[in-house]
Amino acid sequence: MEKIPVGVLGATGMVGQNYIALLAGHPWFKVNYVAASPRSAGKRYREVTDGRWLLPRGYDPDVADLLVEDANDVSRAAAAAGRGELAFVFSALEMDKKEILALEDGYAAAGIPVVSNASANRWTDDVPMLIAEVNPSHAELIPLQQAARGWKKGFIVVKPNCSIQSYMTPVWALLEAGYEVKRIVVTTMQAVSGAGYPGVPSLDIIDNVVPYIGGEEEKSELEPLKILGSIENGRIRKADAPLISAHCNRVPVINGHTATVSLEFGAKKPGIEQVRRIWSEFRALPQQLKLPMAPDRPISVRNEENRPQPNKDRDADKAMTVSVGRIRACPVFDLRFVGLSHNTVRGAAGGGILNAELLKEKGYLA
Amino acid sequence: MEKIPVGVLGATGMVGQNYIALLAGHPWFKVNYVAASPRSAGKRYREVTDGRWLLPRGYDPDVADLLVEDANDVSRAAAAAGRGELAFVFSALEMDKKEILALEDGYAAAGIPVVSNASANRWTDDVPMLIAEVNPSHAELIPLQQAARGWKKGFIVVKPNCSIQSYMTPVWALLEAGYEVKRIVVTTMQAVSGAGYPGVPSLDIIDNVVPYIGGEEEKSELEPLKILGSIENGRIRKADAPLISAHCNRVPVINGHTATVSLEFGAKKPGIEQVRRIWSEFRALPQQLKLPMAPDRPISVRNEENRPQPNKDRDADKAMTVSVGRIRACPVFDLRFVGLSHNTVRGAAGGGILNAELLKEKGYLA
Amino acid sequence: MEKIPVGVLGATGMVGQNYIALLAGHPWFKVNYVAASPRSAGKRYREVTDGRWLLPRGYDPDVADLLVEDANDVSRAAAAAGRGELAFVFSALEMDKKEILALEDGYAAAGIPVVSNASANRWTDDVPMLIAEVNPSHAELIPLQQAARGWKKGFIVVKPNCSIQSYMTPVWALLEAGYEVKRIVVTTMQAVSGAGYPGVPSLDIIDNVVPYIGGEEEKSELEPLKILGSIENGRIRKADAPLISAHCNRVPVINGHTATVSLEFGAKKPGIEQVRRIWSEFRALPQQLKLPMAPDRPISVRNEENRPQPNKDRDADKAMTVSVGRIRACPVFDLRFVGLSHNTVRGAAGGGILNAELLKEKGYLA
Amino acid sequence: MEKIPVGVLGATGMVGQNYIALLAGHPWFKVNYVAASPRSAGKRYREVTDGRWLLPRGYDPDVADLLVEDANDVSRAAAAAGRGELAFVFSALEMDKKEILALEDGYAAAGIPVVSNASANRWTDDVPMLIAEVNPSHAELIPLQQAARGWKKGFIVVKPNCSIQSYMTPVWALLEAGYEVKRIVVTTMQAVSGAGYPGVPSLDIIDNVVPYIGGEEEKSELEPLKILGSIENGRIRKADAPLISAHCNRVPVINGHTATVSLEFGAKKPGIEQVRRIWSEFRALPQQLKLPMAPDRPISVRNEENRPQPNKDRDADKAMTVSVGRIRACPVFDLRFVGLSHNTVRGAAGGGILNAELLKEKGYLA
Repeated sequence: MEKIPVGVLGATGMVGQNYIALLAGHPWFKVNYVAASPRSAGKRYREVTDGRWLLPRGYDPDVADLLVEDANDVSRAAAAAGRGELAFVFSALEMDKKEILALEDGYAAAGIPVVSNASANRWTDDVPMLIAEVNPSHAELIPLQQAARGWKKGFIVVKPNCSIQSYMTPVWALLEAGYEVKRIVVTTMQAVSGAGYPGVPSLDIIDNVVPYIGGEEEKSELEPLKILGSIENGRIRKADAPLISAHCNRVPVINGHTATVSLEFGAKKPGIEQVRRIWSEFRALPQQLKLPMAPDRPISVRNEENRPQPNKDRDADKAMTVSVGRIRACPVFDLRFVGLSHNTVRGAAGGGILNAELLKEKGYLA
Repeated sequence: MEKIPVGVLGATGMVGQNYIALLAGHPWFKVNYVAASPRSAGKRYREVTDGRWLLPRGYDPDVADLLVEDANDVSRAAAAAGRGELAFVFSALEMDKKEILALEDGYAAAGIPVVSNASANRWTDDVPMLIAEVNPSHAELIPLQQAARGWKKGFIVVKPNCSIQSYMTPVWALLEAGYEVKRIVVTTMQAVSGAGYPGVPSLDIIDNVVPYIGGEEEKSELEPLKILGSIENGRIRKADAPLISAHCNRVPVINGHTATVSLEFGAKKPGIEQVRRIWSEFRALPQQLKLPMAPDRPISVRNEENRPQPNKDRDADKAMTVSVGRIRACPVFDLRFVGLSHNTVRGAAGGGILNAELLKEKGYLA
Repeated sequence: MEKIPVGVLGATGMVGQNYIALLAGHPWFKVNYVAASPRSAGKRYREVTDGRWLLPRGYDPDVADLLVEDANDVSRAAAAAGRGELAFVFSALEMDKKEILALEDGYAAAGIPVVSNASANRWTDDVPMLIAEVNPSHAELIPLQQAARGWKKGFIVVKPNCSIQSYMTPVWALLEAGYEVKRIVVTTMQAVSGAGYPGVPSLDIIDNVVPYIGGEEEKSELEPLKILGSIENGRIRKADAPLISAHCNRVPVINGHTATVSLEFGAKKPGIEQVRRIWSEFRALPQQLKLPMAPDRPISVRNEENRPQPNKDRDADKAMTVSVGRIRACPVFDLRFVGLSHNTVRGAAGGGILNAELLKEKGYLA
Repeated sequence: MEKIPVGVLGATGMVGQNYIALLAGHPWFKVNYVAASPRSAGKRYREVTDGRWLLPRGYDPDVADLLVEDANDVSRAAAAAGRGELAFVFSALEMDKKEILALEDGYAAAGIPVVSNASANRWTDDVPMLIAEVNPSHAELIPLQQAARGWKKGFIVVKPNCSIQSYMTPVWALLEAGYEVKRIVVTTMQAVSGAGYPGVPSLDIIDNVVPYIGGEEEKSELEPLKILGSIENGRIRKADAPLISAHCNRVPVINGHTATVSLEFGAKKPGIEQVRRIWSEFRALPQQLKLPMAPDRPISVRNEENRPQPNKDRDADKAMTVSVGRIRACPVFDLRFVGLSHNTVRGAAGGGILNAELLKEKGYLA
């Protein structure tokens, strides 16, 4: 099989670098187009990132020689697509919201599907916000979005914020097993890589906790409702439950968001062992389709009393699984647990790649 | 005024060192007796701690020359008390529970009041567990304890676990203002100094969070109920509310426990501004008595969006105040906030000294 | 005595905040003028720093209400000086070198002495670079500088880079005791606060060491030669020795630069005990004059095998002493030791204040 | 090819766990025997390490079910060897020196070769101390050792301390290229994993540097002389040069020792570009033999101005390469550079495995 040529918008930023690194050796996709800000345009990717590469893992030598394009210049991408050199783009744009909205629209209008990691389009109501294991059926919004906007091939899908990934899949597995989840109080302890680069100043976080991350609590409380919503009249109608209270904190951890969760069920309440079994056995469409980026198990249940921990569990199963542990009864609600996921892989570039794999298998990226 | 001669049991351990450091220059108390394990006994305090002193601040040069006594040998302390050289002891013993119970009993029986930081006697039902600003009236249990045990001068009081200090005083201030608190979900992010020395291995906590501290959640959920209890028949009868769910985590912070708190009121609910005012204006007996170790304000309300933070706020007001911030409505319950206190000062040695000051002013240490 | 009204240029940056904090309650000086970038000008100091105050310690409430001036507008400062409201300024300007050169010149030309922490004028050859304990006599350059430049009251003095403070005073004490120092190989492990704010990204330094700090090695190798130089024809002629090789590293420490030093003497070589005695007994002009910011001992000799350490020793003696330890023979050269100083106090604002105190006592700030 | 059955002594400690993890999937060796302290003996390896496994990477499921043997009971190992179930052992024993000496002797006497990571036998003069790329010819001491001790199949080889690995191979490459190295001043910044588990208390190292590691400077100064020595009369006669001064520090880094090095050549001095070329092109016996654990390049030259760094470079080339950077002239000596190696892989278990691979290819483990 010939590989599908893909592009990365915002390829020099932190999330962009993660895409480039994770796509090295991908069995289906090959990075063939990299775009960034105008001041990087025209240089080779290698030149632009040398001395500024942020990750321990490296990237595909072929990408090193690609000329960086200006991400604002959609016509260059359209031309590449016309030559069969670009099938779709991952958007890791770091600009203000209005600019991202305009640009992602521009790419889609030019016939280039956009699989976005940016937050700009998360609340656009005809744009699906996908976690491949949770709401793959929301991809069905794509043809409706295309019809409404008059787009032929292009479309936009987004993925949610990294902060919710440590508990959203476990919550979904419970819902899918037939247990209503009414209320959640969650506290997150989030890694500094979630703030990008340069991101959190070291003076703010060594020997410290910062109990505030701008906008993060709102996202953590609202995005799950869209993900759990239903398609109605070409839009997502968001779910009414669960009600979520999120306390978001920054901690001195490089990668891996940890969440402590207290959760209230509806009338029907599973026992602790049942929860453990539901999570251990949970598999979803990415696993059935054996998507390359899919973890073997979307949820890894840890039985040790002191796990999961970021520096021991974040890299489990390609850094794509959600590790849960400390599953126990809650004196106030019904269930308590600790969830952990790798924020720049599962919660960002890896999740985006998995979405693209899903869309490809569903035929949207033909 | 001549200073009252006091002793420190477990004087070479981490909490003991904190007592020694904080008592340097104390206006009422003078460390005159230091006791530790048999292997330190007979050496000067200076020799035993040289190269093993854990704190940036030093201690009183007079203490350096004290001969360390064997903490197991109560008769030595009784003799010192007989000579007027020891009025009471702070217990920072680090042994197993049974040994501490026996030893604290022994000192009290020998006529030496024990102001303890150890957890052993926290659930002894005729032993008051004091936070000086919250339940000073529980000191009235002392004469009943003495009567029941046949002790003349000796008695035992304890202080609660450090993990609850970041939210207990704020909760109490709300109760005292007439607002019932029914349920609390709290997540703590606790400093490594809370585990003593050597305590938490660096391999476990650099670039990491450990979502488990043995026994800490139980203490955090139950101790408040004793503190809020009432004296009945010479014992503390614990309160029925609030119901607490505590998630306790260790984070890479040297000093300062941070807590995120979601809280449900009874029928009568204060507004956010009212909460802010209640906390800002809260003063208690230690403030009225102007106790030397008492903070000017038991609760410091921070208005910045990203405070309190351990490395900026833990040392506020002699490291004895509880800093609160991010006071806001909770989507699930009624109120959310972040609380912070210095675990080895407010939560350990400083709190113990404040308890002793209170007892002295109430006449129990005459 | 009425306090001398002083100003701080760059008062909102990290070094500027340190000046403001350290000058709170100063017995001689009172902050009466604060200047920063144009976008802060016209607002109260409190407004500009609220939520952006970087230090655990606070500042003088009177400063909170000062209106921030535009640091580029020298005429405002000149007018304040004319009204007797400003005697001299501390410069903590953070701009590019050319702008700082022009501005510091401007203030001095307007009759306002500039005690600078900036690096711009360090190599201006008629500007003395002072460590109060090492080369106070270089202040004698001031009248020559004024004469050459046609300035009446104004002048410029600077202080050296923070990286050299951990070994420069010990080296000087040896020189003063009559021991020639020929060669030094030094490795520094420098705190993140040395890079200002936002400074070092947390992603670069958690669980990491960065073995490079731009320009720092050159400063560490050359500045000592100016400090040890002599005044000739109205300029500093730099010394020829010692020859220094500096390896500068950034480590995950908030405050406190540590240096490991190997040092070669000339023909006359002191024994280890002699070195220890020289350093223990070293006192200099600031100590004789009992300057308020002067440490009791410029050098604190630690005898424990594992000291000095940043988080235990940086705050010793008002954070103004240099702690040395591990004094021992060097297999390659003659002497080895570890030096430590607080980079933002001794190495920056505190050192600047001490310089101003020295100049005041010498009559240059009359 | 059938795999060679190997044992790990001290299999539950930190270095032992590293051996178990690194040997998972090894093409030649299969862990078939695990031994630890008597209190672990008789349990399955899984049981003993569950909740106490220190590494992010896991281990071979077959090992999980092995029964842990008592490391003190050599007869059990001898019996396993007799049954063909154990060909040699890796020693990661953590006991006092005398016990290790006796035990390693015991295993060797029983016919079981010992490839040791322990320091006990490093200065036994008929025991070779091997870095596979530096002194593989010292393996020729093995038959002499066996003859002198009357051992048939058993023997002991050791590897040197982790602290020297970051500069020893680069120094060797220069020597081999014909440049005499006379003197070295080196400062190490060592990871906490070097101290084992529990090792360095977090209270000692968060926001701190500890400028002392017991015994480490002596090892760093002396071990290179044995490695560079020659075989004379059945013993290693240590080399006379280079003269080394080592300053060893502990820093808040999980894995990866960094060293800053200043180095003096003899009369013949290479230029900087020549050094760069010598290191880039250096290959040794493990590379020629294509040993499984050998890095492609023993030395990786980094050209960025701020590399190598522990958290970006420690895992390069199977964590077995030494990364060097900042190659530049030294104002005091001739050459300066920064070296970095992974202390628990290259510097411990990985280096031990590479030694075993070398010995196997040389026929000593037939």
